[in-house]
Amino acid sequence: MSAKPNAIVAQSGGPTTVINSSACGVIQEAIGGDKIGRVFGATNGILGVLKEDLFDISAEKSETIEALKRTPSAAIGSCRYKLKSLDQSRADYERILDVFKAHDIHYFFYAGGNDSMDTADKVNKLAADTGYELVCVGVPKTIDNDLAYTDHCPGYGSVAKYVATCAMEAGRDTEALYTHDTCTILEVMGRNAGWIAAATGLARRCDKDAPHLIYMPEAAFSFERFVADVKAVHKEFGGVFIVAGEGLKDENGEYVTADSGAFSKDDFGHVQLGGVADMLKAIVEKEVGIKARCNKLGTNQRIAMHFASLTDINEAYMCGHAAVRAAMSGMNGKMITLVREAGSEYNCTTGLAELSDVANGEKKVPREYINDAGNGVTEAMRDYVRPLILGEAPITVGQDGLPVYMRFERKALEKKLPQYM
Amino acid sequence: MSAKPNAIVAQSGGPTTVINSSACGVIQEAIGGDKIGRVFGATNGILGVLKEDLFDISAEKSETIEALKRTPSAAIGSCRYKLKSLDQSRADYERILDVFKAHDIHYFFYAGGNDSMDTADKVNKLAADTGYELVCVGVPKTIDNDLAYTDHCPGYGSVAKYVATCAMEAGRDTEALYTHDTCTILEVMGRNAGWIAAATGLARRCDKDAPHLIYMPEAAFSFERFVADVKAVHKEFGGVFIVAGEGLKDENGEYVTADSGAFSKDDFGHVQLGGVADMLKAIVEKEVGIKARCNKLGTNQRIAMHFASLTDINEAYMCGHAAVRAAMSGMNGKMITLVREAGSEYNCTTGLAELSDVANGEKKVPREYINDAGNGVTEAMRDYVRPLILGEAPITVGQDGLPVYMRFERKALEKKLPQYM
Repeated sequence: MSAKPNAIVAQSGGPTTVINSSACGVIQEAIGGDKIGRVFGATNGILGVLKEDLFDISAEKSETIEALKRTPSAAIGSCRYKLKSLDQSRADYERILDVFKAHDIHYFFYAGGNDSMDTADKVNKLAADTGYELVCVGVPKTIDNDLAYTDHCPGYGSVAKYVATCAMEAGRDTEALYTHDTCTILEVMGRNAGWIAAATGLARRCDKDAPHLIYMPEAAFSFERFVADVKAVHKEFGGVFIVAGEGLKDENGEYVTADSGAFSKDDFGHVQLGGVADMLKAIVEKEVGIKARCNKLGTNQRIAMHFASLTDINEAYMCGHAAVRAAMSGMNGKMITLVREAGSEYNCTTGLAELSDVANGEKKVPREYINDAGNGVTEAMRDYVRPLILGEAPITVGQDGLPVYMRFERKALEKKLPQYM
Repeated sequence: MSAKPNAIVAQSGGPTTVINSSACGVIQEAIGGDKIGRVFGATNGILGVLKEDLFDISAEKSETIEALKRTPSAAIGSCRYKLKSLDQSRADYERILDVFKAHDIHYFFYAGGNDSMDTADKVNKLAADTGYELVCVGVPKTIDNDLAYTDHCPGYGSVAKYVATCAMEAGRDTEALYTHDTCTILEVMGRNAGWIAAATGLARRCDKDAPHLIYMPEAAFSFERFVADVKAVHKEFGGVFIVAGEGLKDENGEYVTADSGAFSKDDFGHVQLGGVADMLKAIVEKEVGIKARCNKLGTNQRIAMHFASLTDINEAYMCGHAAVRAAMSGMNGKMITLVREAGSEYNCTTGLAELSDVANGEKKVPREYINDAGNGVTEAMRDYVRPLILGEAPITVGQDGLPVYMRFERKALEKKLPQYM
């Protein structure tokens, strides 16, 4: 290990609006200090490490690095490659250390969710077992907001702000046409946790406002209750705006599909491909007898930098920054957490959690954040999410009227090892 | 007819980001002048007239009226009620004039597309035939941008700016995960014309940028060419971002569905409900063998005030303003048009077209705006749309971090006629 060992930064899982802001925090703090030599990026997360597909972030222009804060998605490149246990994937873990050794890398900053923290934890343990000096610090990232040990996750505040705005706007669209397109269903992400769907509750400032009904995976979905809910709202307001998390589950914990419940497959056709919203649309049209439409924002919800939360961007940066400071102060095998300070004013600082704890934890929307009927959120949920969406992140708009986002030059590191995969 | 007769303003068809800005132009100019008594709103367009469901916009606060410029959707209320010919729907047209007479309404400002201009034209003709003094002026409105006799339509610039931004952002998301989620399909509105899909071409500032392929209803869709296109892009860039207009048609002018072409229904299941994007996704996964995802913005694309075009907002206002000025100067049976002045600098003024001409016209994306392969746009298309998306419309963001949009108080006019429908 040289006097100034190198660091590697990598991104994993689904891109978010702010994961680049975290990378910016890591890079600027690492470059600004005196303990780290060069900072490398791993193209496509751990896959880039395995393939020795690395590039020199230290060689990038400082403006490019600064522009990370205003660029959505994962500029270094992300992946969905899941390593198994140390026993099952030992060759992969050894290869990772071989690549680190070949490039004098002794600091590993990994931004991601549970699986990424698990990978970082195992790489770290193998390094300790084999006597390779390595410091691993995780940076939390997931729009799903389901990581344990942290008050919330960078990425969540921005998707929350955006989907709440989309619910508000599409709600006004539907309201103008209650006489014809009487129902709209907005499908949002969140296969296991309903945090994103729940955030749209912020848009409802008065009873008339959308969304009238919010369905989350945490509240068991019943087709019969759904039909009753829609009928009641339609009777009261003359139209219905629904938000549905993509991973609704029935009382047995099974994903709700067109095959579930009292409604048979034949009633709705093979609509599974279209997802939850298309299925609910079919139920509304058949059982309530009103026209319904679906909006499915898909990946657009998680990378909407054009209307992102400034609080989220700043906290994401703070996490990246804190990760390097933790590493410099001798912390290892930890993930940075966000800590909400007590008191009536929102104040957020960082803390630390064990990588292995985060890897095995999961945080769902608690019961007290969901209303008794299981079709909306409580004031406690609104209080939780409100501070996270405050402020609008500044973006650069070009002379063509569209946002300007950066890309790295990607000066590739020379490969020093035989090809692995 | 009193010395200062009343005016009515109504909105029709699918809501847009800027139709309220046009209404604001009408209302402020009408209230500010000395020839018009009161300004009434017809709840849900012509349906509100038929039902005598009117409210007094003159009684609204001036801040509420001003806030129309920053509020998406159709605040007065819209409809999809289509009147037939004068012969076939004579009772409806007579009822409209009865309602106008009952409330001393002699100015009718109707914002909408072809069908609305047709309605306004026929109301106007019946008034002339029956000796009722009426001035009808139409205000153009459609995100589809398919009205003839106008360079472009208010509403289009904002949807263009938003979908191009969404294509850019989702494109970056896909690019970060080319190793896994290799293809994304963004479905946009436009059942008969491809203007919205074509606008996403602005997002492609370099070859690597999304969208790599754009399919519009104007270019006959071939399943075989589509598969070849996707394979070629995948080979070149390692991933594929596709934009598809919802109304793709084959060489016979038939809407493309899962049943069309060489690919049978059974190959893809009954995916019609999910729309074009879901069908293309199934083709990509089966024939190209890469994973694909779909984003379907739905109504969110047409009312995205949170990132709207300032040029569009201002031009929409200008059209509303011009409609009242035209009426005051004795014009009747006309629709306001947008005129692009000659010269290298973009400059837009208003003109006039006959309501009956607009009602029967349609403007599709011209062949020279579409590339030879029928899977993208030309520089001529980019030049056409670029000025329309410039500037970001200011919005009011509340202390809760979300946009603040207005609603009318809606002081209902007393009904003077028997119930009609």
